[in-house]
Amino acid sequence: MLRTALSRRAVYPALRVGAHRYPSPQVRLASTTSSPRPFLYRTRLCLRWTGYAAASTVLGVTLITGAIFIHDAFTYTDAHVDKVPVSPLALQPETGGPKNLPVVGAFLSDIEDPENERISQKPRLVIVGGGWGAVGLLSKLSLGDYHVTLISPDTFTTFTPLLPSAAVGTVQVRSLIEPLRKIIARLEGHFISGKAVDLVMSERLLEVEVIGPDGSPKSIYVPYDKLVIGVGSVSSTHGVAGLEHCLQLKTIADALQIRRRIMDNFEKASLPTTTPEERRRLLSFVVCGGGPTGVEAAAEIYDLCQEDIMQYYPKICRQEVSIHVIQSGEHILNTYSEAISKYAEDKFARDGVELVTGARVSSVHPNHVVYTEKDKGTGESTEYEIPANFVLWSTGIAMNPFTSKVAGYLPNQVHKKAIEVDSHLRVKGAPLGDVYAIGDCATLETSIVAHLLELVDEADKNKDGKIDLAEWEFMVKSIKRMMPMSEKHLDRVKELFELYDKDKDESLTLNELAVMLQDIGNKITSLPATAQVASQQGKYLGAKLHRLTKRDASLTKNMISREAADEFVSKPFSYHHLGSLAYIGNAAVFDFGKYSFMGGLWAMYAWRSIYFSEQVSSRTKALLMTDWIIRGIWGRDLSRL
Amino acid sequence: MLRTALSRRAVYPALRVGAHRYPSPQVRLASTTSSPRPFLYRTRLCLRWTGYAAASTVLGVTLITGAIFIHDAFTYTDAHVDKVPVSPLALQPETGGPKNLPVVGAFLSDIEDPENERISQKPRLVIVGGGWGAVGLLSKLSLGDYHVTLISPDTFTTFTPLLPSAAVGTVQVRSLIEPLRKIIARLEGHFISGKAVDLVMSERLLEVEVIGPDGSPKSIYVPYDKLVIGVGSVSSTHGVAGLEHCLQLKTIADALQIRRRIMDNFEKASLPTTTPEERRRLLSFVVCGGGPTGVEAAAEIYDLCQEDIMQYYPKICRQEVSIHVIQSGEHILNTYSEAISKYAEDKFARDGVELVTGARVSSVHPNHVVYTEKDKGTGESTEYEIPANFVLWSTGIAMNPFTSKVAGYLPNQVHKKAIEVDSHLRVKGAPLGDVYAIGDCATLETSIVAHLLELVDEADKNKDGKIDLAEWEFMVKSIKRMMPMSEKHLDRVKELFELYDKDKDESLTLNELAVMLQDIGNKITSLPATAQVASQQGKYLGAKLHRLTKRDASLTKNMISREAADEFVSKPFSYHHLGSLAYIGNAAVFDFGKYSFMGGLWAMYAWRSIYFSEQVSSRTKALLMTDWIIRGIWGRDLSRL
Repeated sequence: MLRTALSRRAVYPALRVGAHRYPSPQVRLASTTSSPRPFLYRTRLCLRWTGYAAASTVLGVTLITGAIFIHDAFTYTDAHVDKVPVSPLALQPETGGPKNLPVVGAFLSDIEDPENERISQKPRLVIVGGGWGAVGLLSKLSLGDYHVTLISPDTFTTFTPLLPSAAVGTVQVRSLIEPLRKIIARLEGHFISGKAVDLVMSERLLEVEVIGPDGSPKSIYVPYDKLVIGVGSVSSTHGVAGLEHCLQLKTIADALQIRRRIMDNFEKASLPTTTPEERRRLLSFVVCGGGPTGVEAAAEIYDLCQEDIMQYYPKICRQEVSIHVIQSGEHILNTYSEAISKYAEDKFARDGVELVTGARVSSVHPNHVVYTEKDKGTGESTEYEIPANFVLWSTGIAMNPFTSKVAGYLPNQVHKKAIEVDSHLRVKGAPLGDVYAIGDCATLETSIVAHLLELVDEADKNKDGKIDLAEWEFMVKSIKRMMPMSEKHLDRVKELFELYDKDKDESLTLNELAVMLQDIGNKITSLPATAQVASQQGKYLGAKLHRLTKRDASLTKNMISREAADEFVSKPFSYHHLGSLAYIGNAAVFDFGKYSFMGGLWAMYAWRSIYFSEQVSSRTKALLMTDWIIRGIWGRDLSRL
Repeated sequence: MLRTALSRRAVYPALRVGAHRYPSPQVRLASTTSSPRPFLYRTRLCLRWTGYAAASTVLGVTLITGAIFIHDAFTYTDAHVDKVPVSPLALQPETGGPKNLPVVGAFLSDIEDPENERISQKPRLVIVGGGWGAVGLLSKLSLGDYHVTLISPDTFTTFTPLLPSAAVGTVQVRSLIEPLRKIIARLEGHFISGKAVDLVMSERLLEVEVIGPDGSPKSIYVPYDKLVIGVGSVSSTHGVAGLEHCLQLKTIADALQIRRRIMDNFEKASLPTTTPEERRRLLSFVVCGGGPTGVEAAAEIYDLCQEDIMQYYPKICRQEVSIHVIQSGEHILNTYSEAISKYAEDKFARDGVELVTGARVSSVHPNHVVYTEKDKGTGESTEYEIPANFVLWSTGIAMNPFTSKVAGYLPNQVHKKAIEVDSHLRVKGAPLGDVYAIGDCATLETSIVAHLLELVDEADKNKDGKIDLAEWEFMVKSIKRMMPMSEKHLDRVKELFELYDKDKDESLTLNELAVMLQDIGNKITSLPATAQVASQQGKYLGAKLHRLTKRDASLTKNMISREAADEFVSKPFSYHHLGSLAYIGNAAVFDFGKYSFMGGLWAMYAWRSIYFSEQVSSRTKALLMTDWIIRGIWGRDLSRL
């Protein structure tokens, strides 16, 4: 009796979630007939246990949900707050600095409670930007290390790798974001919603533009003891005209816009008054850039068409869809292993996603894209045109106005795409130990020759102005220490020495050294602008900043200057590549340096679980899992908001 | 051993979901010590079962999720569609009608497959609007009844009762919407994203304005055999100046805007450069209208402050928050029972939500609201002012441009707020059986006297131009049939007769009848503009339309004209009030006519489960449940998108 009851319940939840391979009621009934033949017995046994499992699944889930709802009720309080102590300086800030703007000397919550009051005495750490770098950094700080202020126009941090999925509704945008206030709450930090516009290094003031109560922009100074710049980058235009007609995929806002545009185009395409030409144009999706973002976007758009559009829009709309990926290089995903690009290209070929490789977009117009393709043989380039109402621009990065301004203030900032930092992530040319930069907006210096003299000074023991083999071996060590990225180019110490010792006098003159270091420097490739790099830099810097406060006493005891402190407490930053991955339409590819994997379903779930594990909060984990399940059962939400 | 393993797992999921009343590891360890005293034994037993339950919960959930993910994989296909048959008329529509616009004679998917081809021969049912009425109607139709076309600017239907929750992020907006295309898919129907602007009843053409491929508005004609108008209403201005500074809460877009505004105000309020006055203004929330929407919005804003703002924003911000509800009547929720308004008012009093009753808003400005309050004693009114950056306008309804235009075309359309329909929901004055109206945009006629002559005709058997008691009793029946709303005013048949038979001649003259029917008509109150009414009207109409096609043959056999068909196949519409409910801050109130309930937690969950059960799809059910769980564990998402 009990068994029957249970096994009946065993069937329902299975059916409810649309899994078709569960025991069907018929099977169950068959099993409940008597005559205990071994097969029947086993069936019955397994059914009974399915019964137990399912029943107590239902039970357990119910209990858990119940528990949550009860907990829910206790989050509610009708406590009233009043007479919160606020420092007058926070209510009436003084003005100062070169532009005589209000200076944020105190924050509203600085003396709210003893804890805050204690922390407000700590050195002021100001972090600009709320991306991977900032979040990584904050994760390594402990409560009370610094008086932390986080500044970002967006009030949330974004899980950027899944933006392509969010752009077509495979996951919801809100599943990718976590409020920055929740992240800094652990450190009793402060948040200002605004964007950095200028920097006064002499007075350690950061100029921030906020939107005032009246809705108009307003500038303020935020004083700092240590400043970390992690404002990311903007897309590089490559001097292409008409980029204002392009969509981008760097932010949540972009993802929302793309999602709206896609659904909008399908609605317009299915209007009975749309001409066939217009329909083809509306359903032509062009992606400029064959990097991970571009490829994933193209793949997700294809998925959307196959899994949802097909079902709910006139079939003709699906038929007229065309997806182009325009790539300047010879292959897509060309930062990945060859096997991977191959795999991706074959996949796209099967899916009818058209690859245009070795082509450059020359201009973008409201209704079409123009690109030129070089003929491999003759080398002359021909111009082609694709009608399109959807052009996604995802190629390369450039400095945003703030970073280029900062770089402009500094000597020996030669790099065009980002602020150059030394191997301790300190902005080159800025007062040492004051200003750091991480993530896309920063690039590690690769020029060794710039340090030639100090290196020689240090290495040239016998002060003969020349470097013999022993001294060279010493020098290699310090170069490696100074610039871990140079390591793999300095393996063959002796060979190098002999190679560049032109006059074979068993020693290197300054000129010979200069040439050698120049060559080695050129060999070093700068780090890619990826979430992985940003996150590692953030964590590295966070750990260092933590150590700097913890070891403050010993620093002063040993009379370590602010300039030398970084080297004293930590090794230079070195990047450990954990591999790259990309989603390509119910298949995924992984590139772990030595090994690379690619495949269908299983790879897709591997891809999902890696991103799942990288979530900043258990909340977004839950949201993401739900999205995938909801999408699995009911498909994507086709609503145009 | 096994037990320990299990009971260890028993603890984790419990902790993971933050339920604190589960056995803690200590307890478990204690229990695993020997000495089988009854208590310990029981503990161990119960722990073991918790173990089993939890273990197989985890197992079950994993299995189910796995099943979904596998199912997920099979939603994916790389099938390509081509050569979809499309009727030339759908590609090149002919023009016609008074304005010579394109006439949608055929749709893109009309001859896609045999099924569609069959359906395209059916009479054309055009439904304008995608709200409660439309969804209710569609739910009662079967595949093949009609060639259905749904027209709405939004591509989704909205679960309006939860908009206040969505406006503060207690639930996500996407959890309240279901794509209309998914709803009409069952009927192989068609969807046009556009808004109705005009109607040509003589030629049965509906003029629809769509946004063309080039982004500019474009008008087309959609031909119909039967037209259902369910376009809802707009907020009535009550001639108040400056409503453009107000927020509303009728659509998803409104909810999104409100959510953005609230978070924006809190961000601005916590800027260190915001003056105390500005802060108070930014944190002053004014709700105009004490109906369910207004009350729930106020309650949800209060919840947001208590449960989330308090934790993550400077305390001073919470302290400065003020919430006002301005109500013209003497009580809020005045359509509910007195006990309920009382309960709600007390609750708000405890929570410090300020009620301003018996007051009228006279004007709204960017930075403040002006309202006048009448002194009960002297009767003279004084003007007051509340500084505010957030003013929600939720009072009364008015006709939208389309409905007022339609009403303008018709004779005897006297009602100001909506289109008058007869008890069969047919638009009064329009060709009978052609045009119907449901939901907020429609109101049932309440005037009986208008039908005086036909009633007398029918009842006056002996044709003496007077109505005796017997004839009156007969007439009462037909009145009740014609206008179910009049029923409760016609109970005391004999009394009425005697009351109005002034000359006591045992019969009613036309004049006496006219007076009586006028009086009765005035007593009838028109239905409220609620989701419940709209939904019931939609279902009623859907069922009738279904019957009309099913019984087409017998209609023609009995030579029933199109005009008389409605009466032939169905009774007039009569509304059955199922009660009203409202959420008021971790408490809820219910009004089921005779009975009314109110209470805290349990009522809130009752409120939730009623709305849960009313969802249009299992998808939104799942989403809603998830939202409530997520919110229960991690609180609201404070991100400003």
